[in-house]
Amino acid sequence: MLESTVAAIRPLDEAAMAAARELQGRLTKPAGSLGALEPLSVRLAGLAGACPPPLPEPAAVAIFAGDHGVHAQGVTPWPQEVTAQMIANFLAGGAVVNAFARQAGASVTVVDVGVATPIPGADEPGDPAGPRLVAANVRPGTRDMTVTAALTRDEARAAVETGIRVAGELIDAGAGILLTGDMGIGNTTPSATLIAAFSGVDAEAATGRGTGVDDETYARKVAVVRAALARHEPDPADPLGVLATVGGLEHAALTGLILGAAARRVPVLLDGVIAVSAALAAAAFAPDAVGAMVAGHRSAEPGATAALRHLGLEPLIDLGLRLGEGTGALLALPVVTGAVRVLHEVATFDSAGVAEK
Amino acid sequence: MLESTVAAIRPLDEAAMAAARELQGRLTKPAGSLGALEPLSVRLAGLAGACPPPLPEPAAVAIFAGDHGVHAQGVTPWPQEVTAQMIANFLAGGAVVNAFARQAGASVTVVDVGVATPIPGADEPGDPAGPRLVAANVRPGTRDMTVTAALTRDEARAAVETGIRVAGELIDAGAGILLTGDMGIGNTTPSATLIAAFSGVDAEAATGRGTGVDDETYARKVAVVRAALARHEPDPADPLGVLATVGGLEHAALTGLILGAAARRVPVLLDGVIAVSAALAAAAFAPDAVGAMVAGHRSAEPGATAALRHLGLEPLIDLGLRLGEGTGALLALPVVTGAVRVLHEVATFDSAGVAEK
Repeated sequence: MLESTVAAIRPLDEAAMAAARELQGRLTKPAGSLGALEPLSVRLAGLAGACPPPLPEPAAVAIFAGDHGVHAQGVTPWPQEVTAQMIANFLAGGAVVNAFARQAGASVTVVDVGVATPIPGADEPGDPAGPRLVAANVRPGTRDMTVTAALTRDEARAAVETGIRVAGELIDAGAGILLTGDMGIGNTTPSATLIAAFSGVDAEAATGRGTGVDDETYARKVAVVRAALARHEPDPADPLGVLATVGGLEHAALTGLILGAAARRVPVLLDGVIAVSAALAAAAFAPDAVGAMVAGHRSAEPGATAALRHLGLEPLIDLGLRLGEGTGALLALPVVTGAVRVLHEVATFDSAGVAEK
Repeated sequence: MLESTVAAIRPLDEAAMAAARELQGRLTKPAGSLGALEPLSVRLAGLAGACPPPLPEPAAVAIFAGDHGVHAQGVTPWPQEVTAQMIANFLAGGAVVNAFARQAGASVTVVDVGVATPIPGADEPGDPAGPRLVAANVRPGTRDMTVTAALTRDEARAAVETGIRVAGELIDAGAGILLTGDMGIGNTTPSATLIAAFSGVDAEAATGRGTGVDDETYARKVAVVRAALARHEPDPADPLGVLATVGGLEHAALTGLILGAAARRVPVLLDGVIAVSAALAAAAFAPDAVGAMVAGHRSAEPGATAALRHLGLEPLIDLGLRLGEGTGALLALPVVTGAVRVLHEVATFDSAGVAEK
């Protein structure tokens, strides 16, 4: 499934992009006055192969959750159980991602791709109209990457294919855009390692303070990233190998979600540092997948900026967020929808009887 | 009405802000992880005098339109009739501001505070559910500020009080947030002059390329701003005098809208360079009015950044927009709503059973 998905990812449609550029020039506004929204609308036309491209509605957030063996190295002050507790919070609708999803009219799907501890209340019937839990646990957390590979290649592949499958199911159910979400205590550490492996920046430039660690924990985190890179010498030309040795189960699944969206020519709105580290893996599998990616926001994590630069993406929003869950992507969603809506709804100079300069 | 409105503007409520800060610390997210949204939510609590503050719904965009005598100096390649033609486009729902307002669920009110030419179709019955036109023309465009004062003090006051009245009507009709909009061919030139007058930056730093003027027109525009400043020597301690000598009717009305919102303790979401130049005038009338202002976006116009710095405001969105109409404010609206929604809807660590670090 991974290979056929990668093979299905094609370049943007040049004719649709040319049509969108031409249309932008006839709409009742000065040329270029919508700034970054104009090239975004052109790219989404190229992705859809149509001008105007469909409105990116409805939106679906997929939150992939996993735990991390590297938690044992003391890279975060939060207990590992918080991953499962926050999933319960997502399912009850009490997290920030739920509040933002309700506001944006987006569905929330939580995918347990590798949580290590029991999810409180997971066996109780949930609200059928509320967030859905998909049980797809590959293993209860990764192994400690400073000691051994985090995952076997087969485990990494299983997680990637879970992401591809979730993308397909959400698109089959009508989603016009997918938003990446994540939950996993400790997951900024493998994110930093993936970013260093794929983009070539060093461990310190790739590593941030995550949920807000102190100087001592930060130094330990950088040392852990450096040790993992030294032990595994991950080869960016072998993205499955990189995900297996230094990644996380949610990173692998997000890679699959992005590839699955790109193969179906549906845009995927990236959240923060976990998402963009997975986006690097997706781009390593299929460079044309970048055409389907929209960077939602610039995470406060420095590795996110390094990854976006490597992908050639400019984020839509920069508000110093570092929460994850999909919150940054949800805040950016109205910008993406607005960019496309302009091509659908705005009058031309000709049709509105407005003089040109 | 101006004096009583200014007198009604009071500082933010410290107790409500303290309560909002404390609540932010108990919600299920790492402290500070919502970046700029957290202090924004605190400030809106202070404005409302309540924690949580009301959701900023529904939203109302007020587009003030006027023409400019300085158009005769060749500061823009667009014909003056485009102001009236674009109003017709707003009323027909065909402009970008209409598309974004429909998406955001915001109403659109167009106020003719000084258009110089007839508005096509203004006497035809419009869609009762669509944008509304308020006829409040103080005079058909300002005078050329390089030759004489743009307005008399009485004319400037009439425009400011129109803005105050519109704010009151929109709030009485239920608006939870006001968004500034503007239309006026040539209006970036008085905006630059106002910004130079109030913030002290020089004419060149305050002046941008507006709708996209060429080098020759840009040089003429800077010279016009410089000439107006030299002729009138506007005194920032006399904001009505500044608006009268070098402002525009829409700038004066926007100043009134902002003061009216601040007096009623309703947030006002600023659009681009025209709005922030009016915001400087509002702050000169009543420094505490800044507490009610939220900067929607960073316009591509350099003067906007100078004005925001003077006001001490950081914009929410920075996408290189330079369209005006209220478009940048509308794109930022979901961020403001999201910031407040967090205080209403997100579970606490305690209530959700999530462990703290």
